[in-house]
Amino acid sequence: MGRWEPNARMRLVRAAIDLFAEQGYDKTTVAQIAERAGLTKTTFFRHFPDKREVLFAGQEVHARLLADGIAGAPAGATPLQAVAAALDAVTATFVPEQREFGPRLHDVIAAHKELREREVFKRAGLGAAMTEALTARGVPDPAASLAADLGVRAFTRAFERWIEPANDQPFPELARQALDELRTAVATLA
Amino acid sequence: MGRWEPNARMRLVRAAIDLFAEQGYDKTTVAQIAERAGLTKTTFFRHFPDKREVLFAGQEVHARLLADGIAGAPAGATPLQAVAAALDAVTATFVPEQREFGPRLHDVIAAHKELREREVFKRAGLGAAMTEALTARGVPDPAASLAADLGVRAFTRAFERWIEPANDQPFPELARQALDELRTAVATLA
Repeated sequence: MGRWEPNARMRLVRAAIDLFAEQGYDKTTVAQIAERAGLTKTTFFRHFPDKREVLFAGQEVHARLLADGIAGAPAGATPLQAVAAALDAVTATFVPEQREFGPRLHDVIAAHKELREREVFKRAGLGAAMTEALTARGVPDPAASLAADLGVRAFTRAFERWIEPANDQPFPELARQALDELRTAVATLA
Repeated sequence: MGRWEPNARMRLVRAAIDLFAEQGYDKTTVAQIAERAGLTKTTFFRHFPDKREVLFAGQEVHARLLADGIAGAPAGATPLQAVAAALDAVTATFVPEQREFGPRLHDVIAAHKELREREVFKRAGLGAAMTEALTARGVPDPAASLAADLGVRAFTRAFERWIEPANDQPFPELARQALDELRTAVATLA
């Protein structure tokens, strides 16, 4: 077995989600995940520190894509226009396989307090990445962190709609819609 | 030693924060916290499931006070006016001792990823309690959860200012100010 397996990361994610759904999160070991993926435990630990982190595999990449999307928005863009560009950047990278295992991912996280905590922390991390990028564009605080929070909420709401079996809209379109809804709701508060 | 010690909960919180600051969070045991507080381990476990939860002792009480504050706001109050009433209700219960150990509490949480995660989860819990109370008043979603989030942010910002040594403003006043700043920032986004 070579040192770098093609697609090892995604294979581990798929194997973990399948096993968590089949036999439960608590009963599943790293060894079982690696075996199901046709990889070694060593390869597992090259990608993830533990089984929990497999469920949050995308966090660093998503944070970077969101930050880059904000940095790359046109100079005259408003904070929420920059956030919309960030959502375009990250949602465009999602593949049909992620939509397919979305509901199982959602269920296993919902069933464990430890995982719900980690999910909340992931969202905070995505928000922090966007806040930093908005601040670098000159958006003052707290407007920067509020705009970032609307971006995280739009991402979360759009993901939940995207993985619904009846949905036929692309993820980027759903994210734009969700951000518009949030902007409208914010206007009623201000 | 009687079954119910006067002020046991606050004594355990103070002992834990003192020990965490003196010798580190990782090195401190439940037995040491109980001993420092002049209580038994059994008493400790009557109040908290583990040493981590001592640092988040107020969460349930604060969530209830916030929800009750929203429920008790005048019928014609806007969502943010109801949130302001909730902040009044919760901040009025804080005592000088909490201000005094605030900086040490802040430092120990900042130094441990596990505790930062728990802190983020606590805030999400406070937000959920306010969202539910706003929804019960007929505030539609996502306006309810956005207003609740502004409340949590105002609470957090005001707490950070309240525990600064140079501060001489009361906590409720700081919370009102912080909520006003957030409302102004939101208006720039909408």
